[in-house]
Amino acid sequence: MDFDKFFIPSSNIRLDAQLKFTAEIDKMTSVYRKTLLIDRSRAENDAEHSWHIAVMALLFEEYAVEKVDLRHAMEMLIVHDLVEIYAGDTFAYDPEGNKTKAAREEESARKLFSILPEEQGRLIRALWEEFDSRSTPDARYADCLDKLQPFFHNIMTEGYTWRNAIAGKRTSRQQVEKRMSVLKEFMPEVHKWVEHAMDIAVQKGWLLEQ
Amino acid sequence: MDFDKFFIPSSNIRLDAQLKFTAEIDKMTSVYRKTLLIDRSRAENDAEHSWHIAVMALLFEEYAVEKVDLRHAMEMLIVHDLVEIYAGDTFAYDPEGNKTKAAREEESARKLFSILPEEQGRLIRALWEEFDSRSTPDARYADCLDKLQPFFHNIMTEGYTWRNAIAGKRTSRQQVEKRMSVLKEFMPEVHKWVEHAMDIAVQKGWLLEQ
Repeated sequence: MDFDKFFIPSSNIRLDAQLKFTAEIDKMTSVYRKTLLIDRSRAENDAEHSWHIAVMALLFEEYAVEKVDLRHAMEMLIVHDLVEIYAGDTFAYDPEGNKTKAAREEESARKLFSILPEEQGRLIRALWEEFDSRSTPDARYADCLDKLQPFFHNIMTEGYTWRNAIAGKRTSRQQVEKRMSVLKEFMPEVHKWVEHAMDIAVQKGWLLEQ
Repeated sequence: MDFDKFFIPSSNIRLDAQLKFTAEIDKMTSVYRKTLLIDRSRAENDAEHSWHIAVMALLFEEYAVEKVDLRHAMEMLIVHDLVEIYAGDTFAYDPEGNKTKAAREEESARKLFSILPEEQGRLIRALWEEFDSRSTPDARYADCLDKLQPFFHNIMTEGYTWRNAIAGKRTSRQQVEKRMSVLKEFMPEVHKWVEHAMDIAVQKGWLLEQ
């Protein structure tokens, strides 16, 4: 849907650019993920996911092994999935989709961030790139939450995403372990719970043992 | 829905409390507002709204007449509607609902924040109270965005909420002007656009003139 025809311009071109970007990013509400909402009513969308992990950033700092600036992590978390507006959500356990992910997201970033005044586009891009690089403690903290939240949703929905992964094939414990390894290093106390929850997931048949 | 029966406990009671709170706040995804999404597909929920204004906090700082800490405003914005999980969304132009709003939200806050370890519950409550008090520049900035976003959605959806306000009665320009007055003081440049957009909304019949 082209939102421009409903837009009422101001007399300030910067403000118009910022408002147009505000309209465009509302499309995050129709980027659906594989993850189910905890009430199981439907799939979660990217706006909901981004909000949920931003609140988590306020709560889980104490488990990080390095000092983090939680507010900076929160800034990254609220923008880290914006590139999915044109690139779509790439399912974590989809090897084909992951081959083309970087190129699709780079093109999406260029298109989306160019709506903004130049220095603001650069600022949002820098937050996305920092998140994507996992190169700072804040980015690693953000990455942990971005992994923990869908893991937790899976636990709370009896392994919904794992059971229905690709073409009806269940996900293996090994695949999930690999994905959650960032928590092993950066939030070991939380990772103990992740290990325990995976044990139960295997017992219950939500995850394949191998 | 009671989520507790699906919860897998850890050996750490603080972590359990934080994870249970994480599950409970996912209920924000089913607190629906009067505002329509910009693509008009359905009503917006509180999780989406909170995320949308948090991103806006990154973009509109330059229009604030006082210096603001946008990251602190963002912290307030992502938690300011949590109390609606049990209290429900109160429509801005519903005089009856607004009479009982404070008491309903206080009770909801007590119930929700008590899930957390005590000092974290106090921290989230303090953010909510600061937002609600509008007593600091950061809170006023957050308040402006919380008003600007649904106003903008109304403009982009040809006055949807205004046209269908209470029992099919249209909202008046005066009501919207009153609601948007915080922007007149705190973000006057943005308010100029708001005035202009209201002129057009009246011309188009989305708002009653008086």
